[in-house]
Amino acid sequence: MKLCRIRTADGIKPAAVDAAGALRDLSGHIDDVTAAQIAPDALRALAAINLDACPVIAGAPAPFLSDARRVFCIGLNYYDHAAEMNMAIPDHPILFMKACEVTGAHDPIIIPKGATKTDWELELGVAIGTRAQHVSEEKALDHVAGYFVGNDVSERAFQLEFGGQWMKGKSADSFAPVGPYLVTKDEIADVQNLSMSLEINGEQMQKGSTKTMIFSVTQIVAHVSQFVTLQPGDLILTGTPPGVGVGHKPPRFMKAGDILTAEIEGLGALRQEAVAFKG
Amino acid sequence: MKLCRIRTADGIKPAAVDAAGALRDLSGHIDDVTAAQIAPDALRALAAINLDACPVIAGAPAPFLSDARRVFCIGLNYYDHAAEMNMAIPDHPILFMKACEVTGAHDPIIIPKGATKTDWELELGVAIGTRAQHVSEEKALDHVAGYFVGNDVSERAFQLEFGGQWMKGKSADSFAPVGPYLVTKDEIADVQNLSMSLEINGEQMQKGSTKTMIFSVTQIVAHVSQFVTLQPGDLILTGTPPGVGVGHKPPRFMKAGDILTAEIEGLGALRQEAVAFKG
Repeated sequence: MKLCRIRTADGIKPAAVDAAGALRDLSGHIDDVTAAQIAPDALRALAAINLDACPVIAGAPAPFLSDARRVFCIGLNYYDHAAEMNMAIPDHPILFMKACEVTGAHDPIIIPKGATKTDWELELGVAIGTRAQHVSEEKALDHVAGYFVGNDVSERAFQLEFGGQWMKGKSADSFAPVGPYLVTKDEIADVQNLSMSLEINGEQMQKGSTKTMIFSVTQIVAHVSQFVTLQPGDLILTGTPPGVGVGHKPPRFMKAGDILTAEIEGLGALRQEAVAFKG
Repeated sequence: MKLCRIRTADGIKPAAVDAAGALRDLSGHIDDVTAAQIAPDALRALAAINLDACPVIAGAPAPFLSDARRVFCIGLNYYDHAAEMNMAIPDHPILFMKACEVTGAHDPIIIPKGATKTDWELELGVAIGTRAQHVSEEKALDHVAGYFVGNDVSERAFQLEFGGQWMKGKSADSFAPVGPYLVTKDEIADVQNLSMSLEINGEQMQKGSTKTMIFSVTQIVAHVSQFVTLQPGDLILTGTPPGVGVGHKPPRFMKAGDILTAEIEGLGALRQEAVAFKG
């Protein structure tokens, strides 16, 4: 199932994508898509709904959860990205947080005031469906509700030139777009074999596959759960493949007016315009 | 005003400390102490309440906000602590987050599963009362509702031996105790001249003063607001004075049964027992 929240003239509606790709209004069945709604039992109940009987709706995607909780990120998690950055392969997943709220898949990316190096990081996102503390790799997927496309937008000057830690460059408003929907895990045959692509104005910047992740989704969930008690609605961005702006020679960064398209096989795409900050 | 939330047999009650030090029940006036309740206008309305007319209550302190938002932390922010750690004085405030929820001033500190170096960091806490983005140092205090005692509890093995970033060692359940109350800023004549002390089982471990902070409260709020849009209910822990466990020779850490008392002049004290994790 592809679950989402759609902005309509009547407010945000919970929705699902039907077999033909149309958006179907779930508001006859649930009030909203919440963290509680992506628990296993709740997802099973949703899967039993006959989407053909639900009204077709249209509108822009809001964040797929009304109450997304925390945004965790894994750094340097692709062999080919670590190579482009000339950085060593980490022994353990590098963990940090984004402080900003999540935004929708077509919402603008706001280049912050004072920014000079606003960069993109297309990432596979993982949504936690049930509480996870000290879980094993074998059990880790039991706690995952599904996957989505994320962009760990990063202002490199703030991240690297103002004394750390990384979250300083990861947390401006609009820096955590997610969507366009949450794809439940049953729809993804092999999450470690999904092609990934990010284009700016039609030019390919990032190209990769979740095949080259250093730490897999199961390893990440298990590892993070040793240090943080994961809760329903928590999101984890699992690292970026090669092609970030700072990895280009010479480096390239976002400018106002750029259109970013970030896509992962089976998960859809974010399509966003970069805009200047207006104070 | 000293605002708090007290656990009673009838649930959590909003309360304030009267001139004689007794807890007065505010539930005849407000439902709870929330982030909205610490905005300037709401605080002015609370200050007009005649506490002598409110019932006296008793109970253990819950976190002073029902909806505390994010917990930001500043690292290495005391000259004398940087010296004990043999670390350079940072050029900018070091910023990271704690992922865990805040706990009350008498709640246990749970030593995590697998922990070997659970340490204490007594810190001056700042509660944000109004949205702050790109604020100047001159205007920074306008966005501060008040102050409190915090402990940036830190498992050093998780923080430093598992590949970073620091939040990995800062985010276990119970690692963000705050309280016992929020002291509104009007009660503190000079926030940069408060004595601080942390004792374990009556033995002094940390001793310092907010005088030796490298970056002041106003500098911190202004700086963080360049990178994160601060919101009402956000909390900032502003760094720790000397005497953390890892700074002792040989290092000392918490063990189950230890009683930690963390006090800041004018802000009260946390009094907590360290307990073993029970899975």
